[in-house]
This record gives sequence, structure tokens and C-alpha cells, in this order.
Amino acid sequence: MPNPTAAMLVIGDEILSGRTRDANMHHLAGELTKHGITLREVRIVSDDHDAIVAALNALRASHDHVFTSGGIGPTHDDITADSIAAAFGVPIDLRADAAALLAAHYEQQGSEFNTARQRMARIPDGATLIENPVSIAPGFTLGNVHVMAGVPSVFQAMVASVLPTLTGGAPLLSQTLRIDRGEGDIAGPLGDLAAAFPDLSIGSYPFQRNGAFGSNIVIRGHDGALLSAAMTQLRALFPEPATE
Amino acid sequence: MPNPTAAMLVIGDEILSGRTRDANMHHLAGELTKHGITLREVRIVSDDHDAIVAALNALRASHDHVFTSGGIGPTHDDITADSIAAAFGVPIDLRADAAALLAAHYEQQGSEFNTARQRMARIPDGATLIENPVSIAPGFTLGNVHVMAGVPSVFQAMVASVLPTLTGGAPLLSQTLRIDRGEGDIAGPLGDLAAAFPDLSIGSYPFQRNGAFGSNIVIRGHDGALLSAAMTQLRALFPEPATE
Repeated sequence: MPNPTAAMLVIGDEILSGRTRDANMHHLAGELTKHGITLREVRIVSDDHDAIVAALNALRASHDHVFTSGGIGPTHDDITADSIAAAFGVPIDLRADAAALLAAHYEQQGSEFNTARQRMARIPDGATLIENPVSIAPGFTLGNVHVMAGVPSVFQAMVASVLPTLTGGAPLLSQTLRIDRGEGDIAGPLGDLAAAFPDLSIGSYPFQRNGAFGSNIVIRGHDGALLSAAMTQLRALFPEPATE
Repeated sequence: MPNPTAAMLVIGDEILSGRTRDANMHHLAGELTKHGITLREVRIVSDDHDAIVAALNALRASHDHVFTSGGIGPTHDDITADSIAAAFGVPIDLRADAAALLAAHYEQQGSEFNTARQRMARIPDGATLIENPVSIAPGFTLGNVHVMAGVPSVFQAMVASVLPTLTGGAPLLSQTLRIDRGEGDIAGPLGDLAAAFPDLSIGSYPFQRNGAFGSNIVIRGHDGALLSAAMTQLRALFPEPATE
């Protein structure tokens, strides 16, 4: 059985303007790979209701899971929860258990549980809450969509809450060989090797270091023995010792 | 006249597997913002012909420009140029001027201009070459699509080659105020301010530092005077001195 597939939807003007460098995608990609869920696509859209709805509906129809980050805080530009509700065509309102969690948290802090903070307890009908041990305000899962915060520490905590509840597949294994030759020198034999192992994915990633080009060859697959066999052949093709 | 819009398509399994952290998106986002082109969407897809074709056709239909990164090298997994040609429905073949550039470059290096390297001179019919001062193998522009390399140093050089050829709009200006209070404390007045300045975008980006939550408020717009007026009101709303 093939592994479950996933897409990620990053919501945030600040990424698209170049102000902020997204960190959540890289974290999620690594966690999904370990959990045996294949991340096939990522989209980044701005804090725009229609853009969020359109992207979400496209992604949830074509992948087993969709993970979103961003836009679930208390300010006017946090429109993700309402957009998700609209995408699913379900009502959204203040939810008692989420509000109770937040009320207790802010009481303990000596802060007011004001109208803005109550916004974070607006949860679409039918959703399950995702625990947030960092700052309490929960994420939620609705259908196959997992809605999480944009602040990296909170996002990571939510990923840790939700991933164990999802059925994974075989973890994607990988081995890397660094070859200190440009891609053009190795592409022929490498292509033949890739053709000989159709169940593996063999990627070539060029790099430049001290003015010289080299290639990292990454072999990925779910069958460890097959992967090692391909790596043995790869080393035989390019036997030069790696130098640091 | 509104600014031209853009989308970016990042092509690469290595980003989706979590092996590599994409750096090109952040670079392009910053350059486009300076040039007055609005980056509205980014998609990341794997090295898969159908996924590239589908994403490219969706993006080029809905934005003024599309910038791609990745997949134009000499190895078997470099399928971007062929996928772009398929998306446009045009033939692709070895192109004489691109081949001449590469042949001269490899002759100078003492390397063979072999079949693999000739792959990098495959250019869709009707395209214009994008200069690559770093490693010579060119990118290309076809219609409103600008196809560039994935290696960051090469990507950046190609962006520098192509951006001056595009008509930009008014640069997007921004000012930031750091407020050492959580979003929940400031969301009410901030929302009123955002409503009072509909021609500006006011974003709130929470952060956590030494266990305390704070908020960076970013005001963006094309009219510097309007932006300064909003910032003056913002400072008046939250007059606490920023502390380092």
C-alpha cells in the first residue's frame, strides 16, 4: 500500500513580502518523512479569504492530509479559522471547551480574556482540537485538514500533538553520496542507474564550494536492502574518495 | 495602476522531503518587493512532469509573471525545461546559441561537452535566454514564465539578469513597530487602526522571546506619507518605549 500523501498550506503575507523566512515547511517536511507520509505539494498564499479557500479546497481534494500554518491568532489579520469553515461550508462560533481552556490560562496569567482572545476559541463545527502546550490556544482538525499556528515553537508543538494520531506508512529512507565532480561528468551513468532501480528515487543536487562544482546524490526509497544495493553500485561507478 | 503580480514555482523533491531548506523563495520575495512586483503565491512541487505542468498552467493563467527554480541541470531528474515546453504545447530541442555558449565554456574548462551537458541547451521554441554569469548554462523566459536554476548562487544571478527587463510598479514600503505585549492585548485597537487605513496592509506577527510574547506590527503600502501617518497613530496607541 502506498504511503498516505500530504500537502501543506502556509498562510502569510510576511512570507510573500520577503520579511520572514518560513521555517515551518522544513520542519513539517522532515517530520512527515519520518512518519511515512509523503509531502507532495506546498502552497503559500497571502492573508486573503478567497485565496485561502481556493487553495484549501484544491489541496484537500487531492491529498490524504492537508496541514496549514498561520493566521489563527487574535488579531484582525488572523482569518484562517473563518476561511477554513467557509471552505468546508460549515458554521463557526465560539466553542465552549476551547474558551474554557483559554479563560483558565489567561486567569492564571492575570490577563483579561477579552474579545480579541475569544477569537482564538472560534472553531468550525465538527472539528477536533489540537493541543497547544506552548501557548494554549488550540489548533484544530476538520476532516483531513489540520490547522496550526504560524509561530514556529507553537507550530512544532502542534505537529507533535497531531502526528501520532495519524496513520503513517513506511518511513522514507535515504542515503547520500557526495561526489566532487560536476553533474555533467556523472549524469550519463547516473541516469542508467536510476533506470535500473525504478522503485527508488535518485536525485542529483549540485553544489558549489570554493569555486568548484560537486554533486550530492540522494537515493530515496522504502526498501532498505534495495537502497543499499543501489548505493553499492553508485559507489562502484564513482569510486573517488570523498575529501573534506 | 496596481502593481504587476507574480507567482513562484519551486521544483524539487529535496525540499519536500525535508532534506534541503529552500532559500530561493525568500530571495525572490525580497527582490520582487523592491521592484514593485507583488508575489501572491508560491507552490512547491516534486520532480514530476504532470505536477509541474498542472501547477505551471494554473499559475501562468492567474498572475502576470511566474518564476520557477530548479530542475534545469544535466541529470535524469532535471525535467523542468521539457515540462515547461509541454505546458505551453511547444516543441523543445537543442538550441544553437545556448549550445555554443556551453561548448565554449566547457572547452575553456577542458571538460567534454557531452550528451548530458547538451541537455542544458534544450530550450523550448520561442523562448528568450536568461544570462547565467555563474555557470553559463542559461535559464529562459517563455511567455510570462521565467525558468531559473535551483542552486542559490545561480538562481540569484539569473534573478539579477531578468528583473531589470520587467516593468515594475511602486515599491512596497513597510515600517515595523515592535510592541512588547502579546497580540491579545493589542488586537482591539490594532483592528480599529487597520479599518481606518483600508489602503494599507497592517500585519501582526507574534514572537516569543525569553518566555514572553510580543508582537511585531508591520504596516505596508505604496504611499509613504499615508504609511507614516498610520505609524504615528500606532505609536500613539502603544506608547511604551521599546526595550532591547
